[in-house]
Amino acid sequence: MSANEPRRHDLFPHRHLLGIEGLQPHEILGLLDRAEDAIEVSRQVEKKKSVLRGRTQINLFFEASTRTQSSFELAGKRLGADVMNMSVSSSSVKKGETLIDTAATLNAMHPDLLVVRHHAAGAVHLLARKVGCSVVNAGDGAHEHPTQALLDALTIRRHKGTVSRLTIAICGDILHSRVARSNIILLNALGARVRVIAPSTLLPGGIERMGVEVFRDMKEGLKGVDIVMMLRLQRERMNGAFIPSVREYYRYYGLDAEKLSYANEGALVMHPGPMNRGVEIDPAVADGPQSLIREQVEMGVAVRMAVLEALSAHLPNQ
Amino acid sequence: MSANEPRRHDLFPHRHLLGIEGLQPHEILGLLDRAEDAIEVSRQVEKKKSVLRGRTQINLFFEASTRTQSSFELAGKRLGADVMNMSVSSSSVKKGETLIDTAATLNAMHPDLLVVRHHAAGAVHLLARKVGCSVVNAGDGAHEHPTQALLDALTIRRHKGTVSRLTIAICGDILHSRVARSNIILLNALGARVRVIAPSTLLPGGIERMGVEVFRDMKEGLKGVDIVMMLRLQRERMNGAFIPSVREYYRYYGLDAEKLSYANEGALVMHPGPMNRGVEIDPAVADGPQSLIREQVEMGVAVRMAVLEALSAHLPNQ
Amino acid sequence: MSANEPRRHDLFPHRHLLGIEGLQPHEILGLLDRAEDAIEVSRQVEKKKSVLRGRTQINLFFEASTRTQSSFELAGKRLGADVMNMSVSSSSVKKGETLIDTAATLNAMHPDLLVVRHHAAGAVHLLARKVGCSVVNAGDGAHEHPTQALLDALTIRRHKGTVSRLTIAICGDILHSRVARSNIILLNALGARVRVIAPSTLLPGGIERMGVEVFRDMKEGLKGVDIVMMLRLQRERMNGAFIPSVREYYRYYGLDAEKLSYANEGALVMHPGPMNRGVEIDPAVADGPQSLIREQVEMGVAVRMAVLEALSAHLPNQ
Repeated sequence: MSANEPRRHDLFPHRHLLGIEGLQPHEILGLLDRAEDAIEVSRQVEKKKSVLRGRTQINLFFEASTRTQSSFELAGKRLGADVMNMSVSSSSVKKGETLIDTAATLNAMHPDLLVVRHHAAGAVHLLARKVGCSVVNAGDGAHEHPTQALLDALTIRRHKGTVSRLTIAICGDILHSRVARSNIILLNALGARVRVIAPSTLLPGGIERMGVEVFRDMKEGLKGVDIVMMLRLQRERMNGAFIPSVREYYRYYGLDAEKLSYANEGALVMHPGPMNRGVEIDPAVADGPQSLIREQVEMGVAVRMAVLEALSAHLPNQ
Repeated sequence: MSANEPRRHDLFPHRHLLGIEGLQPHEILGLLDRAEDAIEVSRQVEKKKSVLRGRTQINLFFEASTRTQSSFELAGKRLGADVMNMSVSSSSVKKGETLIDTAATLNAMHPDLLVVRHHAAGAVHLLARKVGCSVVNAGDGAHEHPTQALLDALTIRRHKGTVSRLTIAICGDILHSRVARSNIILLNALGARVRVIAPSTLLPGGIERMGVEVFRDMKEGLKGVDIVMMLRLQRERMNGAFIPSVREYYRYYGLDAEKLSYANEGALVMHPGPMNRGVEIDPAVADGPQSLIREQVEMGVAVRMAVLEALSAHLPNQ
Repeated sequence: MSANEPRRHDLFPHRHLLGIEGLQPHEILGLLDRAEDAIEVSRQVEKKKSVLRGRTQINLFFEASTRTQSSFELAGKRLGADVMNMSVSSSSVKKGETLIDTAATLNAMHPDLLVVRHHAAGAVHLLARKVGCSVVNAGDGAHEHPTQALLDALTIRRHKGTVSRLTIAICGDILHSRVARSNIILLNALGARVRVIAPSTLLPGGIERMGVEVFRDMKEGLKGVDIVMMLRLQRERMNGAFIPSVREYYRYYGLDAEKLSYANEGALVMHPGPMNRGVEIDPAVADGPQSLIREQVEMGVAVRMAVLEALSAHLPNQ
């Protein structure tokens, strides 16, 4: 559909996209290349391809997420798929049906693509073993959120030309963040230098073993950084004892113009959304000239189109 | 698709439809003409046009409304758009995301048409300034509900040939009614004589300045009236002190055969729905030969098709 | 779309599918034949027909049901219809709108097919009399669930070649089950020998008059049986006094390998889902080699495609 000749894409060798872990660098780069083509589709007046015509995509969300579900829904529809949303919290789960029964039931309806978000780490992997179609992990507990990491990498690459050798700091609530986990794996795979900056209470034990430098102070940690990735403070996942005071948190870890000035000149700011303005980020920075936050959302649709298209080359075995 | 040659329509000069206020009479009439063509689409076996093929329509409802949302959804689908529903009460708003962030996020997904209902007057205008696509106000607080006024005018015109010089009474809960407000502006613009009939407690201060005659008594107010528009008593928007007794309300303001007999012979009865039967209207009148209530619903789909089609001529600037 | 020449189907002479009651055996068999063709559509890569292109299907669910609604949604989309889901519990019903008003409102939007689930027996019949389009009963109270009975018959016929002269036992919560009722009528119509096995407290009075043999003991009732249909124990529909202890229930009526051994060798096991594993069925039996439970789900989509297609030959009179 693009005016330019579209690239030819190598076959993506995996049937599912369950995480960034296990992907080869050239596979990641292949998905990013494919996403570059997809960007153009959404910018046209008629934003429609027919590559998934007649295919059934089911968005199975055990946790509500307006943003991620919408992004996958538009991605599927713009590729021509029949998209069906299922919010499972309200119905079968109440009736006592197990995850496995839900999977088997859906599978019998012959979906081609199953996009799954679940509150438990590993639930998406379990589900993928029970179905004949391709599964995309749209976030499982504190484990992985691969399309978020891919869209972040795409956004970075479009601004810096490459991810390799950049210094990237991921800041804030690392402990509860599948976004942090997927990003650390992906950015390391592409050769970035990755730092995490957080208070001790929001750092998982042994995080150094993931190949990151750990900082507890923003001033120190942001020195020499090209990209500042802020994370949402996920108070809804914390139990009472460890909830930091918002005012204290903002004082030490909230990204404002002063803290941003510690980073390299022109350092770029990212956030996966939805933002807690005034908690982990100052609105002036979120909406400022160094912010890529809106562009991340656009890249999200493009990356999901790329993933759905790449996986659809694997025909279901049913 | 119609057997008749479709009319050619002038370009609608506004990018958004945020209210009836500010529309010129010929622009209103242009939308009604366009809606006349759209009626035929929904009456065919294959009720489908391709004018919005590949366009993305997002229905963003901060207040639940089965009826209005369904009408917009069918209108979009019958024009070939990809329609995505977002009920925002349940998700991002809980997570503390602001209206502006929601708008910016959606905008980054490249919608072409954003249909918005919000509980606060003015929220839709605010949102329209933050996005690059066309916005349709599907009801904002007690402010405006322009497609309801357009569908009412279309229904009237099809029965009376014109709106101009008719005497039209809007009766009941004027205070909480965006439907009343949009109708008063539209009917005045097209040259009707507009009355409101309500108890003092349900009349906004200074309503006379909108160019209406005010009555507090149904018998007096309905004399010489061609069209009786009843409003839903919106008890859910009232605080305790001002809730009228339903029995008293029905006695004085509920439209029954006797009160209707005060109006002109063959006066037509309208209601935007959903009705409180036995509160503001007697079921025998609602379902009687002078009622246009069902036809209003049909005209609703047609008017929304007309609006979506008219706005889609403005390409998003994104 | 199938490689084989599709069968030609006789016109289905009913405008609605409100129940199995009143259908002639050849009409039932005609729907099953049509469903056989539909199975192939969902097994293809491009699972899409255009027979309902431009038609509007509304799924109007007054009771939540992920499974049944999804099955109808996919069936409609794979036939090319524009499908709109309406969950009515949350919106208009709260605003006090009656079932009849909801029906009249939807009807004015020119749907072609209305798929309705309602908690009250008879509500779907009432609604069908108020609309100009075709209505499919997707479950009304404890009355009928005709597409479930059709999909069960289709599943049986594909394994046994016929339904006629088979001995089929329906076991468990007969009292609250529309599935049992529709199945008893259909299986009798096609010439099966139908038994019900349940404790007295879960048997409706006068069930024998429906043409079934009644057993209260699984060992006795399963002797000589070809098909064992288990039912979901619907504790959510029971009032306190009659809820059986789950442990007792499982001991006497839960289908495990031992009880299944009383039936004919190779007897097949069915369940409409969602299952209460360990209540009415042992997981080992549910997932075992004699179970048809997954296949029932697949047949569900096919049967619903057949029904939607058959009814769509009747043009709405609106």
